Amino acid sequence: MDREKIKELLQNVKAGKIEVTEALSILKSLPYEDLGFAKIDTHRDLRKGFPEVILCKGKTLEQVTKIIERQSSGNEVIMATRANKEVYEAIRNVRADAIYYETAGIVVIGQRRGKTAKKTILVVSGGTADLPVAEEAAVTAEVMGNTVERLYDVGVAGVHRLFDNKEKLFQANVIVVVAGMEGALASIVGGLVDKPVVAVPTSVGYGASFGGLAALLTMLNCCAPGVVVVNIDNGFGAGYFASVINQMGEGK
Amino acid sequence: MDREKIKELLQNVKAGKIEVTEALSILKSLPYEDLGFAKIDTHRDLRKGFPEVILCKGKTLEQVTKIIERQSSGNEVIMATRANKEVYEAIRNVRADAIYYETAGIVVIGQRRGKTAKKTILVVSGGTADLPVAEEAAVTAEVMGNTVERLYDVGVAGVHRLFDNKEKLFQANVIVVVAGMEGALASIVGGLVDKPVVAVPTSVGYGASFGGLAALLTMLNCCAPGVVVVNIDNGFGAGYFASVINQMGEGK
Amino acid sequence: MDREKIKELLQNVKAGKIEVTEALSILKSLPYEDLGFAKIDTHRDLRKGFPEVILCKGKTLEQVTKIIERQSSGNEVIMATRANKEVYEAIRNVRADAIYYETAGIVVIGQRRGKTAKKTILVVSGGTADLPVAEEAAVTAEVMGNTVERLYDVGVAGVHRLFDNKEKLFQANVIVVVAGMEGALASIVGGLVDKPVVAVPTSVGYGASFGGLAALLTMLNCCAPGVVVVNIDNGFGAGYFASVINQMGEGK
Amino acid sequence: MDREKIKELLQNVKAGKIEVTEALSILKSLPYEDLGFAKIDTHRDLRKGFPEVILCKGKTLEQVTKIIERQSSGNEVIMATRANKEVYEAIRNVRADAIYYETAGIVVIGQRRGKTAKKTILVVSGGTADLPVAEEAAVTAEVMGNTVERLYDVGVAGVHRLFDNKEKLFQANVIVVVAGMEGALASIVGGLVDKPVVAVPTSVGYGASFGGLAALLTMLNCCAPGVVVVNIDNGFGAGYFASVINQMGEGK
Amino acid sequence: MDREKIKELLQNVKAGKIEVTEALSILKSLPYEDLGFAKIDTHRDLRKGFPEVILCKGKTLEQVTKIIERQSSGNEVIMATRANKEVYEAIRNVRADAIYYETAGIVVIGQRRGKTAKKTILVVSGGTADLPVAEEAAVTAEVMGNTVERLYDVGVAGVHRLFDNKEKLFQANVIVVVAGMEGALASIVGGLVDKPVVAVPTSVGYGASFGGLAALLTMLNCCAPGVVVVNIDNGFGAGYFASVINQMGEGK
Amino acid sequence: MDREKIKELLQNVKAGKIEVTEALSILKSLPYEDLGFAKIDTHRDLRKGFPEVILCKGKTLEQVTKIIERQSSGNEVIMATRANKEVYEAIRNVRADAIYYETAGIVVIGQRRGKTAKKTILVVSGGTADLPVAEEAAVTAEVMGNTVERLYDVGVAGVHRLFDNKEKLFQANVIVVVAGMEGALASIVGGLVDKPVVAVPTSVGYGASFGGLAALLTMLNCCAPGVVVVNIDNGFGAGYFASVINQMGEGK
Amino acid sequence: MDREKIKELLQNVKAGKIEVTEALSILKSLPYEDLGFAKIDTHRDLRKGFPEVILCKGKTLEQVTKIIERQSSGNEVIMATRANKEVYEAIRNVRADAIYYETAGIVVIGQRRGKTAKKTILVVSGGTADLPVAEEAAVTAEVMGNTVERLYDVGVAGVHRLFDNKEKLFQANVIVVVAGMEGALASIVGGLVDKPVVAVPTSVGYGASFGGLAALLTMLNCCAPGVVVVNIDNGFGAGYFASVINQMGEGK
Amino acid sequence: MDREKIKELLQNVKAGKIEVTEALSILKSLPYEDLGFAKIDTHRDLRKGFPEVILCKGKTLEQVTKIIERQSSGNEVIMATRANKEVYEAIRNVRADAIYYETAGIVVIGQRRGKTAKKTILVVSGGTADLPVAEEAAVTAEVMGNTVERLYDVGVAGVHRLFDNKEKLFQANVIVVVAGMEGALASIVGGLVDKPVVAVPTSVGYGASFGGLAALLTMLNCCAPGVVVVNIDNGFGAGYFASVINQMGEGK
Repeated sequence: MDREKIKELLQNVKAGKIEVTEALSILKSLPYEDLGFAKIDTHRDLRKGFPEVILCKGKTLEQVTKIIERQSSGNEVIMATRANKEVYEAIRNVRADAIYYETAGIVVIGQRRGKTAKKTILVVSGGTADLPVAEEAAVTAEVMGNTVERLYDVGVAGVHRLFDNKEKLFQANVIVVVAGMEGALASIVGGLVDKPVVAVPTSVGYGASFGGLAALLTMLNCCAPGVVVVNIDNGFGAGYFASVINQMGEGK
Repeated sequence: MDREKIKELLQNVKAGKIEVTEALSILKSLPYEDLGFAKIDTHRDLRKGFPEVILCKGKTLEQVTKIIERQSSGNEVIMATRANKEVYEAIRNVRADAIYYETAGIVVIGQRRGKTAKKTILVVSGGTADLPVAEEAAVTAEVMGNTVERLYDVGVAGVHRLFDNKEKLFQANVIVVVAGMEGALASIVGGLVDKPVVAVPTSVGYGASFGGLAALLTMLNCCAPGVVVVNIDNGFGAGYFASVINQMGEGK
Repeated sequence: MDREKIKELLQNVKAGKIEVTEALSILKSLPYEDLGFAKIDTHRDLRKGFPEVILCKGKTLEQVTKIIERQSSGNEVIMATRANKEVYEAIRNVRADAIYYETAGIVVIGQRRGKTAKKTILVVSGGTADLPVAEEAAVTAEVMGNTVERLYDVGVAGVHRLFDNKEKLFQANVIVVVAGMEGALASIVGGLVDKPVVAVPTSVGYGASFGGLAALLTMLNCCAPGVVVVNIDNGFGAGYFASVINQMGEGK
Repeated sequence: MDREKIKELLQNVKAGKIEVTEALSILKSLPYEDLGFAKIDTHRDLRKGFPEVILCKGKTLEQVTKIIERQSSGNEVIMATRANKEVYEAIRNVRADAIYYETAGIVVIGQRRGKTAKKTILVVSGGTADLPVAEEAAVTAEVMGNTVERLYDVGVAGVHRLFDNKEKLFQANVIVVVAGMEGALASIVGGLVDKPVVAVPTSVGYGASFGGLAALLTMLNCCAPGVVVVNIDNGFGAGYFASVINQMGEGK
Repeated sequence: MDREKIKELLQNVKAGKIEVTEALSILKSLPYEDLGFAKIDTHRDLRKGFPEVILCKGKTLEQVTKIIERQSSGNEVIMATRANKEVYEAIRNVRADAIYYETAGIVVIGQRRGKTAKKTILVVSGGTADLPVAEEAAVTAEVMGNTVERLYDVGVAGVHRLFDNKEKLFQANVIVVVAGMEGALASIVGGLVDKPVVAVPTSVGYGASFGGLAALLTMLNCCAPGVVVVNIDNGFGAGYFASVINQMGEGK
Repeated sequence: MDREKIKELLQNVKAGKIEVTEALSILKSLPYEDLGFAKIDTHRDLRKGFPEVILCKGKTLEQVTKIIERQSSGNEVIMATRANKEVYEAIRNVRADAIYYETAGIVVIGQRRGKTAKKTILVVSGGTADLPVAEEAAVTAEVMGNTVERLYDVGVAGVHRLFDNKEKLFQANVIVVVAGMEGALASIVGGLVDKPVVAVPTSVGYGASFGGLAALLTMLNCCAPGVVVVNIDNGFGAGYFASVINQMGEGK
Repeated sequence: MDREKIKELLQNVKAGKIEVTEALSILKSLPYEDLGFAKIDTHRDLRKGFPEVILCKGKTLEQVTKIIERQSSGNEVIMATRANKEVYEAIRNVRADAIYYETAGIVVIGQRRGKTAKKTILVVSGGTADLPVAEEAAVTAEVMGNTVERLYDVGVAGVHRLFDNKEKLFQANVIVVVAGMEGALASIVGGLVDKPVVAVPTSVGYGASFGGLAALLTMLNCCAPGVVVVNIDNGFGAGYFASVINQMGEGK
Repeated sequence: MDREKIKELLQNVKAGKIEVTEALSILKSLPYEDLGFAKIDTHRDLRKGFPEVILCKGKTLEQVTKIIERQSSGNEVIMATRANKEVYEAIRNVRADAIYYETAGIVVIGQRRGKTAKKTILVVSGGTADLPVAEEAAVTAEVMGNTVERLYDVGVAGVHRLFDNKEKLFQANVIVVVAGMEGALASIVGGLVDKPVVAVPTSVGYGASFGGLAALLTMLNCCAPGVVVVNIDNGFGAGYFASVINQMGEGK
């Protein structure tokens, strides 16, 4: 495609339709286009339904709303993560159609794409306190066009709750495991299924959980193959990655 | 399938072909079969060509060879990782057909399945010293029935070497990025492609690399979405996970 | 027992009293029952007086009260830990009979079992600031049906206070040692007694106590045998474990 | 008892049977005897069959053998841990009756007490590489007069191997769980049983296991109550503690 | 001395002046008195002017004031550290004569001993932000009966300020060095003087100071001999230790 | 120069113009003057336009304003960093001409020197949340007499934004790279340019960024030569160092 | 320049001298050339005398010699760091003109450029054990065309050795400070001079030096401005950076 | 004193006995002499018997022997620490009178000063494996002219061994406590005595001792006042500091 554009340009130069200096100016911006950056990325997002994502943490309200305004165009989906109520209300002032997923801390603006992947992503969580991270993963995957099932509060302290729902485990195409404290749930799930497991350590816990370090190390050292890890509390990253691999075989 | 077996069993009980005590004894072993463990796992491996894997590190030569002997049966593929030459020679004594991938430190026994996934896994590495880990990933994926391309020594100190090969990046279905020192390569690749990136930090480096901790943290904090992480030097885990997701859309 | 149920089922199938499909459906749920999960666990708790425990930290008020309501049934004991006054008041709204142990941060609901173990658990603490954790351990053990003695403020800075009370040390059946700062009290007690010692590091301290890490490492490296460790500030875990072993010889 | 001895002494002084200076000399050694130290400890060991234990690591061959010689007396049991073959051979030179448990790295000298506790201690291990630590725990408990069962290589990567042996779990009186890498086995076992679980993290693993730190943190953060932890690779400490609590209800 | 008391007691028993039961009761409290604990400690404090010290951090207002009331007797000096204004006001309610050293966060009650050691303790600090810790050290040493000189804000960023005052360094008997950030001041002072240097790392700094860890490690690795270290922000400990060694040659 | 002053002094002593005691007094202050400390430093600052800098963090409002008042003299530039609005307002009370750079948290007082270095310093930042640190660097360099260009929000998640501005990278004389999270931007820039790169890790991020540790380690392990690192969030230090080397070839 | 080439290309296309497809093929490789990578980098090295550098650590002898052979061409300078004697001898087999700097662990091949920068780089080290790192810095800077002075063994334990040589400090254009243990030397030097200081922490030390972490943190927290830091033991990186800034004003 | 020398010099200049240029030359070396550096330090050492100390670790045999040769002069005492047998033999080649303290790893050369401090330093150690560090402290203090008593193997696992020797504790003037593993011995001793306690953590231990970190943190967090800490395994530093304070009241 890009080659076609350059070919056309060169043919126009050859035919004298475009001046050398003008062609030079156009070619000057090629490098990063040719690398598949910026605009192409934007097009791909529109085309594939992958939303632009704004991490609100660390940004001022003014910065968040300015970014939102800059991104607003047509039916595009805009997603903002780590958004508390104050952020949501600031966004709503510039985009009245903003929807707030409170537990997930996610604001979504614009039309969500109707069509979704046929296969499901299962989000499993260890305890009630892991919900915000689990929901961040689940909502992210939903916004990106996936069917998401939830299986919450099935931590290893009562592992039968997990086994009781093993059908869900076996039917899912991709599994996101969200767990704090010792994070052993990822190992259990990873030992049971042959589907890809994306493990999210959470900062839930106290003392020697060291802000999620314990769960992170557990998941990294998982002796069951087929388990990969994202940053502590990074529900968004897990949901995003799960979406990418869930849609690999779907012609998306 | 298992349901069918139980159904058949119950019908046999009903028909008086099987005694209640005998049926009881058969049902006694159901729980873990019903959970999809042990035997089913074994069947799945034979059926799908996913090899059983032996981590040689921490095992005595005798333990490794005993496990090999126990696993040896028919055409099954057996894979042993973290195997040095001494381990390889011990294995060769019990299985003369063992093949040794020296840089990867992997021993493979038995017939590799001929058919492979159509899409390719690309293994990218930062430097020459990362080769053992990169090869562990690459050979693992190959043994599991994937086409693997290698793109080595393209670290960020001379990032043009990476961009020069961006076609490979864009054509791959799954990308494994292996890097030590600061591990920034995963972020660069993750920022360029829309394919799943599995990042492997290596213990290559010195001083404040703290045995791979620096690269690990870099990869976990990757600001580009679509990147997940495995343990330091865990080439096998990355290759295994890459294989799982590469074969998701292939009816495997 | 479970075997008897299956046997009966099979005999009913044989006798034609139960259809194969119905039997199949019943057998489908066996695995986790057979593992002794869920319901059996619930029964055991009622039978043995071990209360269900809710960790309030990280849960919303709404979540805590909903769990309380779900668990409320008959005379069962319900225990909620890490409960501040706000949590207590929310609980009291749904269960007026809730009792609040303020220093321990524990809310108890329902009838405490009258019968207690004959032998005593001694909870020893280093300093005044360790009281919340020590009380969490003591109240937990009491609620679980143990006689608990307290020996507080006997840290190593004035170790004679400990030796002055050595009778208490020698008479206890199980000893819980709660200490912050350098946590050396566990080593001293462990060197004096032949009873099991459960050490609880606390986050009491400053500077190089690193939130309890110093006391934790001290206790893990205890050169006196017979000392085990739980998480930093985990008074509940220590009280629970002490109760389990205190009641081992009591036919409970 | 001690009071009686002092009372008798005072009555003898009063009666003029003992001189004041002699009584003074006897009373001078009271403080530490009264505290239950030294000699009383020695007596208890002889009486109860708890062996004195020598940690060989960090001691010279000469130091080890001198301690052995000093402790040698009658039928007493002497146990030396972390003993490699060289240490064993040095010990055998001074005590020809020394027995070497090679995998456990333990040397035992003297008559083992014939009578053992009726209830069993179960030592569970995650993988083959954890064997030295598991055996250190098992042999320690055996030498201290317990019946020990072993359940090895049942790590969470194939958790069905554990469930397949759940009878062993439910029949044991005390369970020692030995696991490296992510150490999740302790959580699984802790979630299944109502018996005390002593968790031993091992340094087995690589990369982000950080010499056993990952497994240690996992076990400390175990969300299932009833699990306590000892130092990394401290099989001896776990076996010792398990013995202490196993013999609590046995009149030992 | 204690021996004389026991001898006298025994002679009284012999002479029938004291009953056996009464003597028994007196002897019962010997162990810890013989160890030089409790009462002797109290006497020594009164006699030598070393005040009892209360660490307010982690104690409730009620606990602090109760301890103060319990300790209040005669002219004794009472010292409370880490006391904010709220604590001070609570103390003043029970002891109107309490004096508050605000920067040091120290409350002193009762008569300070008039006589002080002839030699001086010099408290040196790196920056203005280290003042609270430096003052904690200085006030502690003053309350304990020492002459204290202060040399503040002479950090290594402008090391001439230190050298300009080298007379003070050379004239001091003991030097306390208080420094945050990189804590290099202790090394400089330690390289200049032949007097004992007590180094206090502070939590002053940001980023890679990691709450004082950087300064702590600097001081522990000090290549100049004659430097010892206390906990981060432990001005009290440094002032106390400085006092102990300052008064060693003074017949105190 | 200093030698000349001493020579003159000695000649005056010889000639009887200065008394021995007076000469002694003058010589007494020589050591530190000869070392080029204090006054010379002050002169150099006035002469070269390098402002004295006050780190407000950890100082009371009173301390900051007193230091400002002490430094105020003539046209000298005074700079205060880590100043929040409250600090700024306190400063404005004593110096009405204080200017506040809010994002940078810097207060500047007095006349900025008109003349600036001809070559430019480029401050590059990864994300919007890094702005306060980036601005601290930029404003510091500007106050010290440099031309500063800003290139913000060009992190590796969309690395084309950086390449699109590579002209700025190639034209700068010194580059300051400010990045949080994984901090990989420094490696990318360091791999592209032959100019000195000063990398500033920021505490922006969450989870395994551990307060900036991840970015710090990334930058320290940078495999591209020509990159040096300052403390986490130390924008001032980077701006200061950049200024020093930017003015090296300018006769400043 | 590159623009001129593209302009010429377009003019040739316009003039019909070059076919569109051929032009397309040429333009396809523009992106990375336009970014100034690969070839331009190579040219710059040849032109400016900056040698290509091979980090031998982690590479096999075969890999090192192959890289050497690939780089060998004309008079170019080749530098290999972290080279032990075995590496040197392997290199000498393929390049007999290789010169070995044993303390620095550096091998240099080919003609060193005769002309050097007029200003000097001073390499200062704390102790004798820091020599390998200091020499790595010094030799690197020399090979890159700088005059290097050495000032070794002037650590803060005897800081007068440093002050005695302050002329060297004041005359240098760039200062590299190499120090292990507490690494305070960088702070002292940074407080004395107005020249850029590049600090290199070394792993020299024991105990709480934690492999150089203590010195690293010291240097990062340096309260004197004008000090930047490189990785632990990274003498090469410091020498390289010092060279870059030393040659900034020299028209290089 | 120094002042007198300068005064005399000035008077000689005034009197014409010394030329201005000659006086200038003499004054030139004043600064660091006036600071009490180099020569004065050397004189003090000769005068007071404090030996120069060489840390052999990290130095080549050649470097150690060269330093020894340079220091050799008259009766001066030379001490080298961390010297293994190989180092000792190299030293003996240049100084036949070198004496080797093998356990301490210390080589002493030259005449030890006959006169020693009247008061004793007590070196207490926890276990047999701590001996090398304890002996390093003890021999250092002896060489520096102190009477040293040893009380070894009195760790907290059998704390009665310590109390049995409390007379030694109470009679000592300074106490050095050397302990590995959990390092609690320092707290016990610190709680018993009113003498200064210098605590030395050792790297003895395994697992969560993390090379001495556990003992170090324990000692830093010691809740008993009067305890200071040196680096892990730094027996020399403790012995040196103990000597300095032991000789404070002795007119040394």
